[in-house]
Amino acid sequence: MTPTRILVCNYPDQQPIFTIREADTRAALSVAPAHLPPMEFVFRAYTDPALPQILPTCEAMVGWQVPREIVRESPGKLRLIQLTGAGVEHLAPLDWLPPHITLANASGIHAAKLEDWAVMTLLMLHAHMPHFVTAQRAHRWSKRYSSAIAGKTVLIYGTGGLGQAVARAAGRLAVRTIGVRRSPAPVTGFDLVVGLGDAGLHLATADFVVLTLPLTDETRSLGDAGFFARMKPDAAFANFGRGGLVVEADLVQALTTNALSGAMIDVTSPEPPATNSPLWDTPRLVITPHISCDDPATYVPDVLALLLKNIDLLLSGQAVPNRVNPGLAY
Amino acid sequence: MTPTRILVCNYPDQQPIFTIREADTRAALSVAPAHLPPMEFVFRAYTDPALPQILPTCEAMVGWQVPREIVRESPGKLRLIQLTGAGVEHLAPLDWLPPHITLANASGIHAAKLEDWAVMTLLMLHAHMPHFVTAQRAHRWSKRYSSAIAGKTVLIYGTGGLGQAVARAAGRLAVRTIGVRRSPAPVTGFDLVVGLGDAGLHLATADFVVLTLPLTDETRSLGDAGFFARMKPDAAFANFGRGGLVVEADLVQALTTNALSGAMIDVTSPEPPATNSPLWDTPRLVITPHISCDDPATYVPDVLALLLKNIDLLLSGQAVPNRVNPGLAY
Repeated sequence: MTPTRILVCNYPDQQPIFTIREADTRAALSVAPAHLPPMEFVFRAYTDPALPQILPTCEAMVGWQVPREIVRESPGKLRLIQLTGAGVEHLAPLDWLPPHITLANASGIHAAKLEDWAVMTLLMLHAHMPHFVTAQRAHRWSKRYSSAIAGKTVLIYGTGGLGQAVARAAGRLAVRTIGVRRSPAPVTGFDLVVGLGDAGLHLATADFVVLTLPLTDETRSLGDAGFFARMKPDAAFANFGRGGLVVEADLVQALTTNALSGAMIDVTSPEPPATNSPLWDTPRLVITPHISCDDPATYVPDVLALLLKNIDLLLSGQAVPNRVNPGLAY
Repeated sequence: MTPTRILVCNYPDQQPIFTIREADTRAALSVAPAHLPPMEFVFRAYTDPALPQILPTCEAMVGWQVPREIVRESPGKLRLIQLTGAGVEHLAPLDWLPPHITLANASGIHAAKLEDWAVMTLLMLHAHMPHFVTAQRAHRWSKRYSSAIAGKTVLIYGTGGLGQAVARAAGRLAVRTIGVRRSPAPVTGFDLVVGLGDAGLHLATADFVVLTLPLTDETRSLGDAGFFARMKPDAAFANFGRGGLVVEADLVQALTTNALSGAMIDVTSPEPPATNSPLWDTPRLVITPHISCDDPATYVPDVLALLLKNIDLLLSGQAVPNRVNPGLAY
């Protein structure tokens, strides 16, 4: 029986946390379901000149950068592209993707790490930590008291893996959760889910507003001056999605004019911000370098487990839940 | 029946969160046990020239500053001094206190607020938040990843109300808790409690070290160069007790030389630090202005409930758990 060939396609300068090594694939196979057919991993860098010959001999590939030209022109046996990340905006538009090939993202593997991170973020925003950090920079001892966080409300844009992780975090703090998604429907962990068109009322009353959305034409620049102006005075803001969800100049303005009590962003546009970007010195803004959802101990093992699960689903003719919808691009 | 008279002794420039108003006493009486004798609250500022005449007519007083001369010279009917805070170092030495008068602190009322704060602090230290805040000041995007906090270990100096709150917080994060107290004995919420002399081993292996001790001759300057040097490389530190527990120059040195991964302190000595104190700009040090344990919604109600409970205990001849031991001064 010919083994199923899987191309591992790391790219140069990739961070170690996202790099798949041979030992990782051996470890993944050792815990894979016994009914899976034999698998063979092939390692070729994204820049390898032999990639046009190698890729068509593989049934699946896993990586973050996709050799789109090769996939479009000569996909050969390729049936599955497993991404190591959740976002696909770096591959858009998806017109290079043959319809018979499944593009799957890694949505879901970031949730465990983000849950603790979101507990921390909600507590930090509630405790005025962005204010204290700003005051410290100015050598100022400026007291702000806070009461219990229990009973506050968080409005979460996005009810997918990340949004559900934030909702679980809020639940651990007895914070009420309202989710926003394209089409309203109950989602586990949320006290209420509303459609995008009905979010305005909740935007005006929530204590915390958190973005976990993918970046698409529809979500780009959602967080603009009007958005921040509709938020309750003294409410706080966080972005775990993508930098492009926010008009950064408008966020800077909202914080500078005290319209928000504080903000924490783990994503910017571009990343990193320019050295002279006003973001760095904006009062009551805490920036972290896009690390909130990534756990170095579990990242690669989780991606490989997802890859093997998706191969299993494809081989048995079942739907792949992580399949990216080319029309929606997430 | 003559009502029991209680002197409410606020002091000038006291922060609103700690100021007891008439409405507060009415609210406290409305929820007091029915068997309590009638109570009458008398309001006189700490600076009121009539205090020498008023205080001896009262069975109890509540406040933060104590008119020590009056209490020593002419206590009259006074039997209970209820402090609004936990620390008594501002009243030491306690040689002014007649032995028949019970001095009670407010230890215990800070615990609920501190528990959430400690969850936040442990998560922030674990997530390298002090590093990110320092990097942001330098306009640097400097990634540090973290895995799950579950399974880490926190060493907590002090197993009283604050220490137990930190232990509960750690328990919520599945962090192992080791307590340090003068004489080792099991304490609820701690996985292990050791004596001060046996803390060294755990100091060298704990991921987080947290001080919640009162400031006494015995605890002053506990956190010195030798203490920080014994901590595990990359361990993190927090102080919720009193600034004087730490030799601040040694903490600055430990952080500047990267011996610790980060620190969060809610107390300094003096408070606030001098405008040109090196604390403000120390890398990976987050300073908050002594607000971690105080909840404006519950502080005064909790103090008054404690006062009435202690009056009840004294009237029925029972021990007052919050009584300050003049020998130990806490």
